[in-house]
Amino acid sequence: MTVPFSFLHHLACPRCQTVYDADTQAHLCQCGSPLLVHYDLEAAGKQMSKEQLRQREPSLWRYHELLPVRSPEHVVTLGEGMTPLLPLPRIGARMDLPQLYVKDEGTIPTGSFKARGAAVGVSRAKELGVKTLAMPTNGNAGGAWATYSARAGLAAYIVMPEAAPLITRNECAISGAHLFLVNGLISDAGAIVGRAVKQYQWYDASTLKEPYRIEGKKTMGYEIAEQFGWQVPDVILYPTGGGVGIIGIYKALRELQQLGWIGEHLPRLVAVQAEECAPIVKAWQEGKDVSEPWANSHTIAFGINVPKALGDFLVLDAIRQTNGCALSISDTDLLAAQADLAREEGLFVCPEGAATLVAARQLRQSGWIKATERVVLLNTGSGIKYPNTVQVSVPVLQPQEELPIS
Amino acid sequence: MTVPFSFLHHLACPRCQTVYDADTQAHLCQCGSPLLVHYDLEAAGKQMSKEQLRQREPSLWRYHELLPVRSPEHVVTLGEGMTPLLPLPRIGARMDLPQLYVKDEGTIPTGSFKARGAAVGVSRAKELGVKTLAMPTNGNAGGAWATYSARAGLAAYIVMPEAAPLITRNECAISGAHLFLVNGLISDAGAIVGRAVKQYQWYDASTLKEPYRIEGKKTMGYEIAEQFGWQVPDVILYPTGGGVGIIGIYKALRELQQLGWIGEHLPRLVAVQAEECAPIVKAWQEGKDVSEPWANSHTIAFGINVPKALGDFLVLDAIRQTNGCALSISDTDLLAAQADLAREEGLFVCPEGAATLVAARQLRQSGWIKATERVVLLNTGSGIKYPNTVQVSVPVLQPQEELPIS
Repeated sequence: MTVPFSFLHHLACPRCQTVYDADTQAHLCQCGSPLLVHYDLEAAGKQMSKEQLRQREPSLWRYHELLPVRSPEHVVTLGEGMTPLLPLPRIGARMDLPQLYVKDEGTIPTGSFKARGAAVGVSRAKELGVKTLAMPTNGNAGGAWATYSARAGLAAYIVMPEAAPLITRNECAISGAHLFLVNGLISDAGAIVGRAVKQYQWYDASTLKEPYRIEGKKTMGYEIAEQFGWQVPDVILYPTGGGVGIIGIYKALRELQQLGWIGEHLPRLVAVQAEECAPIVKAWQEGKDVSEPWANSHTIAFGINVPKALGDFLVLDAIRQTNGCALSISDTDLLAAQADLAREEGLFVCPEGAATLVAARQLRQSGWIKATERVVLLNTGSGIKYPNTVQVSVPVLQPQEELPIS
Repeated sequence: MTVPFSFLHHLACPRCQTVYDADTQAHLCQCGSPLLVHYDLEAAGKQMSKEQLRQREPSLWRYHELLPVRSPEHVVTLGEGMTPLLPLPRIGARMDLPQLYVKDEGTIPTGSFKARGAAVGVSRAKELGVKTLAMPTNGNAGGAWATYSARAGLAAYIVMPEAAPLITRNECAISGAHLFLVNGLISDAGAIVGRAVKQYQWYDASTLKEPYRIEGKKTMGYEIAEQFGWQVPDVILYPTGGGVGIIGIYKALRELQQLGWIGEHLPRLVAVQAEECAPIVKAWQEGKDVSEPWANSHTIAFGINVPKALGDFLVLDAIRQTNGCALSISDTDLLAAQADLAREEGLFVCPEGAATLVAARQLRQSGWIKATERVVLLNTGSGIKYPNTVQVSVPVLQPQEELPIS
């Protein structure tokens, strides 16, 4: 008997429960909801063990039984995953929160957690016979999907706002993607892609419009659990734009519970948004199940500038089911936190990641987070991808000069 | 009996063999040579096993017995090491070299292999009681040492050429380092630092002027051996500026031989330089043991713009002892290879790393590398740190427009 590489079973709609075949190309449910991937967890649980996992290579493919790629030959990888989980001793001490950690997605291919979704999404697209995919992006997802598409040999059409970070433009262009800018927001890019996808019958790789990106992102949840020795933390704070990461982490935790690898206690999930783009926060505060599109959204944390997320109801559900919460942070505060993390802890995080530190501080001050709790900030990428958020003024010396030490 | 965390034994000069105590601050030998670190490998070999290693965390600290930090509490880490070793199937096939790999240091903290040297160098400096360090840099080392100094709580004085990559300037500044630019080359920066270090009694962290950076870099050699199941490859190509990586990899391989973990056969080490800054190549071609300073050096691969390396004789020795060679690449060719790697394999490497692909192609064409050989390119960092080496021209659409598909 051969052992399956993946225990992929079927797709299902989380809203209307319609079931779909996992082995044909699928996008949204007929009801308009994103689809979620289901596995034969009972069979997987008999096959896998924590001990065996310890011996495996340090990439997200160590969890291959719980990922949607059926054959190892279709795995498209650049070595993504098993990113560091680092303590923040100085900042934690200042906050009276000694067990403060960051899950650092800065050290992953393309310098952004988008590599996880792209690795699994592109692998599965390739396995399903896709030749051309298309997507709108705020930058980092485009860079990642362009890169992995190149590695897979797929053609990629990518549309991003003109204001998206320059470096992500470079990633797309050098990887041979067909890149276009739009004089507008990601929603404008999405409309252009939507029409093109229909016209040319391309594979729509937009956020949550294919079911597999979330499977890549969920591995952050597996890794956090494994890195803490299968004792999950009390709180995970996540910078929320499209929200795929928080949906994925919640899904991962539920799967680990079903496998019996973690207990009943789940981390409280916290969605962190920018003050000028906080649709999830508003919906959460108002007790609503879905968000309203946020008008005139803007923030320097470009990756979370998403006025309306397709999976908003899943994000809100993940927060409620775990007794979490949602809060928004000003650009001024998150930039100060970015500098704080670099100066105090040596971590040069992206602005989105920095927002979670401000949120944790506020929640600690209000008592919502207790001093004895174990808290994880999810840093979604490296600060080196955002040269323009750091303002530097440096003295210039002539070769014969001495260092001017005051 | 407690088991030592490190089997650090003493320091010794590779030129005049003078021995130094490893537990006091040491820089160059009295004869002017860099010092190398020695371990009690016999004792270490009794303590360590390949099987036990498999269970350890995926960072360079998995090799802690062979690293110079005596106490785990002094380890300053951002989770560096155990970077991916990736096959290049398409480019390899085109070159008639099916076993072509890249060791990708793009996915490491600070996006550059300099993080390895900084992690170990800063850890050991902290252990030895250092409070302030200083160094000249072409950018990436400065970014790494600034970051790790911040994490360690050390003060860092860093001087880099005005032309060094902007992003490395950001890394230094946001990490709270005392940063200065110089209107000149790294050698000018070095002279300024040299005078300041003497005047203020700072710890000199210049390349090879402290013995521990090389210990961090050597872990690339350990990882390559471990990732190939302790069967070393036939050829390793390394972009050579200061040359610490090639010296380190050679040292690592010798240590593994002494441990009996690898056999007699060593990879042939190839130093790759830029055409307009090729002092090692010139010395190797002329059969010399040391290099001459290269006048008016320049290359877009900024990290290998080093007119005269302090460890040049060690680089030349590593090449000769392994029957390797040295060759230089034009900027035009290495930029083309950078685009090739991104488009064909999805790897956005730095210009320095791209140079090794051109070198491998030339050596394959000349027959110096055989089709059956296993070859590793060392990519020293991520392309995302060099936005200016990628020239992008992208069409801009208005929101209501259609994608112009030709």
